[in-house]
Amino acid sequence: MAEIEMGQNLKTLNDAVAKQNRSGFQEHHIFVLNIMGSPGSGKTTLLENILPVLAENLRIFVIEGDLATQNDAERIRKTGVNAVQINTNGACHLDARMIQTEINRLDLNTIDLLIIENVGNLVCPISYDLGEDLRLVILSTPEGEDKPLKYPSAMLHTDAVVLTKTDLAQYVDVKIDTMKTYIHQVNPKARILEVGKSDGVFSVNEVISYLVEKIAARKG
Amino acid sequence: MAEIEMGQNLKTLNDAVAKQNRSGFQEHHIFVLNIMGSPGSGKTTLLENILPVLAENLRIFVIEGDLATQNDAERIRKTGVNAVQINTNGACHLDARMIQTEINRLDLNTIDLLIIENVGNLVCPISYDLGEDLRLVILSTPEGEDKPLKYPSAMLHTDAVVLTKTDLAQYVDVKIDTMKTYIHQVNPKARILEVGKSDGVFSVNEVISYLVEKIAARKG
Repeated sequence: MAEIEMGQNLKTLNDAVAKQNRSGFQEHHIFVLNIMGSPGSGKTTLLENILPVLAENLRIFVIEGDLATQNDAERIRKTGVNAVQINTNGACHLDARMIQTEINRLDLNTIDLLIIENVGNLVCPISYDLGEDLRLVILSTPEGEDKPLKYPSAMLHTDAVVLTKTDLAQYVDVKIDTMKTYIHQVNPKARILEVGKSDGVFSVNEVISYLVEKIAARKG
Repeated sequence: MAEIEMGQNLKTLNDAVAKQNRSGFQEHHIFVLNIMGSPGSGKTTLLENILPVLAENLRIFVIEGDLATQNDAERIRKTGVNAVQINTNGACHLDARMIQTEINRLDLNTIDLLIIENVGNLVCPISYDLGEDLRLVILSTPEGEDKPLKYPSAMLHTDAVVLTKTDLAQYVDVKIDTMKTYIHQVNPKARILEVGKSDGVFSVNEVISYLVEKIAARKG
């Protein structure tokens, strides 16, 4: 009981800071994306594949969250997009304050799209609003068909679910259609996007079109 | 800062209950295993494959932890081993109190091996002692080579790391040897065990031998 009350206080505090972040982003016309998912679900790989295309028309900055290492920010910078790494040192999620600290160091006039890749975790990050416009939850097929039912809060509190590594479905006895049915069973409104490798090439067009459409809708 | 202090109080409380659990287990000569890992890393599949063998010589009971669904306890019961499901309703880990509530309902004289499968999460469960004798962290190769470095606390606070889905390594550009090097870089003492499918059959012998050896050492 005590734990729940403390959680509520922290949540109220976080939501207040998230609101400040959101109003700062709106003032500077920045579209903000919060990407969540388990370790190894394919969050950074997705970014490596969509950034070169999105960067043709948008000025992008990426905030990477991880318990430890600078690996992901380094991977992002190799695509030519600037990135900073937050190490949470044990915390299983980013919070609005961590994002606020980073954006205070940035010139927000030089950014159109801010992408936040959260700590690899299908549970904790979900409850923390960072001030984003859009959420993507990444779910990889090797995690198993029943994961949408077992992690319902992640399915409920997202705009879209990106199913990754669809090319591995055949090796892990996963039916993509069943996974989609389960996602919509929990959240009928969630948009489902698929990402897989075909002949060694990632097909990320669905994700790019979806993001371009959402960003345009915001601006329009 | 406030968050860290509250965390410490909860941890102290949890450790006290874990101590009670541990002393109850010792009194009844029960060996307790705590299995942790990301969603879909292969925890339940591992159990499905080792339980039939272990159950030949040991009376086993399984406690399954998940945010939602009874799926995993049902999967375990199909192996002939009795299991109960704890739904944490949002909490990203099991705690010692949840385990205590379950064991108070059990006849501990009828159990030799208690296996606890934690909530799918590579971060939160690590800090919660449940009163176990041995910890296994499950890491699947599709999660990616660098995960031992990115989730160091999971590597540090375990007795063994089970690398699962090694047969998928070839499809996801993961070198098993690099993953092992990273694990030992964080925790040189961690025992590494491999589990993969060969011709449709799981090779779980390494895990079974390891557990049998550890259980024997405790009894001896």
